Amino acid sequence: MTAHEIHGPVVPTEQARSVFRPLPASAVRLAPDGLLGRWQARNADATLPHCVEQLGTYGNLANLRRVTGDAEGEFAGMWFADTDVHKTLEAAFWELGRSGTASPFVTDTAGLLEKAQDPDGYLDSYFQAGHRDKQWTELHTSHEMYTAGHLIQAAVAAARSAPQHPAAQQVLAVARRFADLLVQRYGRSAEVDGHPEIETALAELYRVTGHRPYLDLAARFVDNRGHGVLGEGRFGPRYLQDHEPVRQATEVTGHVVRQLYLLAGAVDVAVETGDTELLAAAERLWDSALDSRTYLTGGQGSRHRDEAFGDPYELPPDRSYAETCAAIGNFQLAWRLLLATGKVKYADEMERVLYNGIAGSTALDGTAFFYSNPLHLRTGHDGSHEDAPSQRLAWYSCACCPPNLARLMASLHTYAVTGDADGLQLHLYGSATVTAGGRTVQVATAYPWDGRITVSISDSGTEPWTLALRVPGWCTGSGLTVNGEAVPAEAPDGYLRVTRAWHGGDRVELDLPMPARLVTAHPHVDAVRGAAALVRGPLVYCVEQADLPTAGPLAGAVLEDLELDPAAPPAVAPSDGGLTPVALRVPVRVRADTSPAPLYRDVTGPPPRPAATATVTAVPYFLWANREPGAMRVWIPLAAPEA
Amino acid sequence: MTAHEIHGPVVPTEQARSVFRPLPASAVRLAPDGLLGRWQARNADATLPHCVEQLGTYGNLANLRRVTGDAEGEFAGMWFADTDVHKTLEAAFWELGRSGTASPFVTDTAGLLEKAQDPDGYLDSYFQAGHRDKQWTELHTSHEMYTAGHLIQAAVAAARSAPQHPAAQQVLAVARRFADLLVQRYGRSAEVDGHPEIETALAELYRVTGHRPYLDLAARFVDNRGHGVLGEGRFGPRYLQDHEPVRQATEVTGHVVRQLYLLAGAVDVAVETGDTELLAAAERLWDSALDSRTYLTGGQGSRHRDEAFGDPYELPPDRSYAETCAAIGNFQLAWRLLLATGKVKYADEMERVLYNGIAGSTALDGTAFFYSNPLHLRTGHDGSHEDAPSQRLAWYSCACCPPNLARLMASLHTYAVTGDADGLQLHLYGSATVTAGGRTVQVATAYPWDGRITVSISDSGTEPWTLALRVPGWCTGSGLTVNGEAVPAEAPDGYLRVTRAWHGGDRVELDLPMPARLVTAHPHVDAVRGAAALVRGPLVYCVEQADLPTAGPLAGAVLEDLELDPAAPPAVAPSDGGLTPVALRVPVRVRADTSPAPLYRDVTGPPPRPAATATVTAVPYFLWANREPGAMRVWIPLAAPEA
Repeated sequence: MTAHEIHGPVVPTEQARSVFRPLPASAVRLAPDGLLGRWQARNADATLPHCVEQLGTYGNLANLRRVTGDAEGEFAGMWFADTDVHKTLEAAFWELGRSGTASPFVTDTAGLLEKAQDPDGYLDSYFQAGHRDKQWTELHTSHEMYTAGHLIQAAVAAARSAPQHPAAQQVLAVARRFADLLVQRYGRSAEVDGHPEIETALAELYRVTGHRPYLDLAARFVDNRGHGVLGEGRFGPRYLQDHEPVRQATEVTGHVVRQLYLLAGAVDVAVETGDTELLAAAERLWDSALDSRTYLTGGQGSRHRDEAFGDPYELPPDRSYAETCAAIGNFQLAWRLLLATGKVKYADEMERVLYNGIAGSTALDGTAFFYSNPLHLRTGHDGSHEDAPSQRLAWYSCACCPPNLARLMASLHTYAVTGDADGLQLHLYGSATVTAGGRTVQVATAYPWDGRITVSISDSGTEPWTLALRVPGWCTGSGLTVNGEAVPAEAPDGYLRVTRAWHGGDRVELDLPMPARLVTAHPHVDAVRGAAALVRGPLVYCVEQADLPTAGPLAGAVLEDLELDPAAPPAVAPSDGGLTPVALRVPVRVRADTSPAPLYRDVTGPPPRPAATATVTAVPYFLWANREPGAMRVWIPLAAPEA
Repeated sequence: MTAHEIHGPVVPTEQARSVFRPLPASAVRLAPDGLLGRWQARNADATLPHCVEQLGTYGNLANLRRVTGDAEGEFAGMWFADTDVHKTLEAAFWELGRSGTASPFVTDTAGLLEKAQDPDGYLDSYFQAGHRDKQWTELHTSHEMYTAGHLIQAAVAAARSAPQHPAAQQVLAVARRFADLLVQRYGRSAEVDGHPEIETALAELYRVTGHRPYLDLAARFVDNRGHGVLGEGRFGPRYLQDHEPVRQATEVTGHVVRQLYLLAGAVDVAVETGDTELLAAAERLWDSALDSRTYLTGGQGSRHRDEAFGDPYELPPDRSYAETCAAIGNFQLAWRLLLATGKVKYADEMERVLYNGIAGSTALDGTAFFYSNPLHLRTGHDGSHEDAPSQRLAWYSCACCPPNLARLMASLHTYAVTGDADGLQLHLYGSATVTAGGRTVQVATAYPWDGRITVSISDSGTEPWTLALRVPGWCTGSGLTVNGEAVPAEAPDGYLRVTRAWHGGDRVELDLPMPARLVTAHPHVDAVRGAAALVRGPLVYCVEQADLPTAGPLAGAVLEDLELDPAAPPAVAPSDGGLTPVALRVPVRVRADTSPAPLYRDVTGPPPRPAATATVTAVPYFLWANREPGAMRVWIPLAAPEA
């Protein structure tokens, strides 16, 4: 990179296998009036400062000051609480690169980390102050390398976002010392950490530094897994991703975030080393997740107990765990696979999980978050417990998700477009300015509320180049015009491509029709049998109790009493200035009073019959739980056809 | 009680409110050729000796010997591992009462407990050896009174089963010393244990001893709950049953076993003190469980993470937790409510959970057990983990269930019949001899395989008395004859009653028709929408992969591909000498190959169509997983009517 060029997460080296190439982070600026740009601005204005504040309130920074002798008292929070600091620092560095704004948190934390680090490079406040005897002795549960990995990722963000900034150089030096310690200690070891993360971190650090031993250690850690070195633990080897070597595995399993982070590392290693077997394994495992273990929102993980994927087709909407960090992991893995392979399905998944599973985790004001993201909140739900709250919380005792959101959103612009000498490829649509390789284009769109995307060329070289526009998998009937003239719009690989010598003022219009649709699930998904979900464009919709009229045929009804009328399609309703720019108006039947019915009855008995018809409002899933608390559902039973 | 009269669990005092009165334990002998009798014999021959052996293998007895200085090493197992000893001892005492057989385990353990007890009465090997500093300091999690409760229940079994036996007297003395310590320490306290159990134990100890302070303390502990004295803990106050006073609560919630054990204690207290408000609360809470939070098998608890009831209508068959101990707790609570109120619904529930949720936990040979009892095991299930194994295991790291089964089965005969001066009431049907109050009757039946029950009077006083026979809620069209003549068979309260002066040789025949039936669930139970379950009499049936033909139209099919044909009822098939005396033959349609189908698709697309019809075998749920491991399901999708 040049002295002043800044970059985002995941920058394969020039030697790496990479069908698409990320643009420099400075190449894309999201417009503040588009949804993506507003999310990113909210992150800078609200989420990131909120995270910094919570790190003080919850003692994460004090934990590190205990090591330096500047604080006393007990260690606070989870034993891997340092990672919340590291992830927030990573977010702050991406934000520094994006906006040029460095908060005092960046400088203070860089100094604190340097001061807290052991002379040999070790840095983990839980073990340094109070648990020295356990250092490196309990890798199955200690999270020491997981913590090191997040430190390294903060340093990667520092080096890519602000290479000249003293705090960035300080953090990079700290991270390298820790990484060097890992190389020295584990470079010939069969051991591995119980929670993957170090793999992708070391590969990225290699990309930043060119220091090959980091990549070699990442590769070693990927292949050390699956040989049972971590023991049974509380939840068995699958939980620890130690049940089977990655390159032999055929199905995702166990703890979702661990599986996804491991695969992210595996892809990073594979593309840098040309390991096609390993890349194929990652693709195969991703497919197994998407084929049978992914919610309609892109969320993954159906089990609260061990945060696991669950069995194939085990996708209960009410007990979806769908951890926010898993959605982020899904996005980050899909991005790596998109770069490596150029396959549009990965960009489709990035879009789906971003607009639903990820976006739904954060409150409108950016300072409250879901950890678990259900697709159905029952009437009568006991939401008093942190594991399944009815409303977003400001923080969690295990606060992995909020700073994970902050680092993703601070770097969101880097995932929208790729580019190389041949042209630009637009993957995520949002109003933005893209400047790269002497080309400048403006993207103008009200996406995802409207499917019209206008790309205006304001600057271009003289050589022809190709503008590639993703046609999402959910779309049929897309249309494309260049300067008002229709061009053949075929996208056999999912990208519409127009190649020409572009001129300033050229204007490309892509139209992606967005009717409201009803979707249903594979018949093996027992949990939503006989039900359908409302979608429009990339957005999953839901019905909330807050939108049920309290008078008329729905008076006294609960969400569980509604059935979709399969013969009456939902209608798209423009904003009334409320929660959402686009709602859906959904014809429903209201079941006759069901509450006194027995829990089980003979099939031959008279079935409950719909008593009335009505129309209810559905809102985007990502906006749910921003009004009074109440029931919500994505999947709604389909009424039987009228006899 | 007279010197040689022996009794079973739950014997209300004469002053207690009790519509039905338990018979002495010696009044009922189950015939060894009936199913109930065979279960009880298997318990004596296999399960109980197995439990005793495991207590040695897993170190539970050694934990107590560490206290007496007769063993060294680390404490083994859960911190409440003593309860496994106490429950096994309780089972051994019931068995001693039933059969007159006292194993060396009884004598040895009685001596060990006496030797291990502190001078002040305290007895808990975890705290006595290694955690003295924590004694009585962490009631929210320590289980100290839970452990005391199980010790007391063993003593109650001892006193009722073998009042003259030295070991019984020894255990009773040990338990009283501990109970006296509790009275002294907590008799004026607002504190309470995190895990209910002590309440019912103290009430029962009061019944055995007549010592009123035990009952008063039980009552105090019931009312101490719900005031937040236990704090948040890991899973919140509901988990700890400390969220709301019992007598104000309207819905069961939180940890199922804790809720059920607490309610058992509440009923015991209520009937002994005449506390109608408390009894009404217990009835109300039981109703809330049965109305919306109970599986078709009588199992309860849909959440693995915190072993909780879950929300109303949250009843996923694949992730049913349905802990064996919860099913036993359901049975024990229903028995208490049946005695207190005489309402048949409680006996119906005892039958349902006994034949399904409880019986299904135990392997055919009586030495392997499910902890969690799913109603659906998916194809591709990861059963490698102890929390959700594909097959029953010989023991568990938390081994509460197997000895709980042992104590229930050893006392099973005491739950079948009640009686008083007015007559006998038959609740659970099995071949048996009943002798009470100068009356002797023989019950002969192949129940639950056949619905004909013959009651022969072989001895009777001269006074008229009433024979009451339960007509199960699942039954329609029951018929009754006395000495071959039909008598009006109306049972408005669920019991057919015949009052007369009986003579030796009189013969009553009750006929309970048992067609195979399809049942469906309340429409709010999303998890089984569009599916039905097969039942016959009290038995729930299931289909196992082991019964799918590997040739013909079902070749290559998995259970998830089957749909029930709603127009073709299942047929009852007599035994072929295999797993079950009565199987069901079930017409099904086999969905066309579904595996390549996308996980989500537009409703408007062509639905997968059934490709073939076939007939499969269904077996009683309680017999599942006794052949090669494989998928199982109780709820099977109903095919759409043919177009």
